[in-house]
Amino acid sequence: MEVPDHEKFMRIAIQLAEQNVKQSAGGPFGAVIVKDGEIVAQSPNRVVTENDPTAHAEVSAIRIACQHLVTCNLEGCTIYTSCEPCPMCLGAIYWARIDTIYYGNTKIDAAAIGFDDHFIYQELERPLHERKLKITQLLPEEALIAFKLWQSTETKTDY
Amino acid sequence: MEVPDHEKFMRIAIQLAEQNVKQSAGGPFGAVIVKDGEIVAQSPNRVVTENDPTAHAEVSAIRIACQHLVTCNLEGCTIYTSCEPCPMCLGAIYWARIDTIYYGNTKIDAAAIGFDDHFIYQELERPLHERKLKITQLLPEEALIAFKLWQSTETKTDY
Repeated sequence: MEVPDHEKFMRIAIQLAEQNVKQSAGGPFGAVIVKDGEIVAQSPNRVVTENDPTAHAEVSAIRIACQHLVTCNLEGCTIYTSCEPCPMCLGAIYWARIDTIYYGNTKIDAAAIGFDDHFIYQELERPLHERKLKITQLLPEEALIAFKLWQSTETKTDY
Repeated sequence: MEVPDHEKFMRIAIQLAEQNVKQSAGGPFGAVIVKDGEIVAQSPNRVVTENDPTAHAEVSAIRIACQHLVTCNLEGCTIYTSCEPCPMCLGAIYWARIDTIYYGNTKIDAAAIGFDDHFIYQELERPLHERKLKITQLLPEEALIAFKLWQSTETKTDY
């Protein structure tokens, strides 16, 4: 098998980021997902164009790759992202079971131009009651019924 | 203004979770987003039905709320989720600028039935080079050009 051309794929991610700014379409971010040396998905940041705060480049590329490959499991895939993923995107990358990440800019570079996910990292490290975003438990006994139902169901699709 | 009925909304989130299991549609999770006492979005976990690893109940509800309200900013909204959000969903809740979270089951309850996001929390706390998921910087000088372009562009939409 040919050695994957990491720089080639990263340049495409960077190009997506640049085009997004030039077209006034959104933030300077792009991501490419590759499997077996072939691009299976690519996306710029689409938060503004799609009115979707979750449509970061990485999340959008993951969704496209999964539609394309008809799976929610991207094992064997590599993601090339023009910027170090935020906690949301990292979470998405883990849940999608992507193997490897290549990134261009750091989160420090991103903070310097106004995209600061430092606050989210800080919050995640804090116990719930010390977070700025108010979070309260409610009806735990009733909520647990759904979990017990899941455990006792044999027809479930594990994922 | 009437006092919001937190338990009523949480029960709807729990019901979505239960129905998802009963219909063999996916994991036992549901979320409801409320603004000014009205439900603006509700969703069960749709990972399996939509082949989308990012389609947790909270992320799906955020997307629906944003489409409904034609905005990527959910300030003034409260999310009721049948289970404590994972790092991906928490990131999404922060980016969406949701004000308040109510949750039913804890992440410990979730881990006990096989949905364990503990690994993701651990990874987020580690420096990049100590993570299990391989992450490598590539072409930082080229990537930075997109950021500089963003800084020097006057027509950009901040978000």
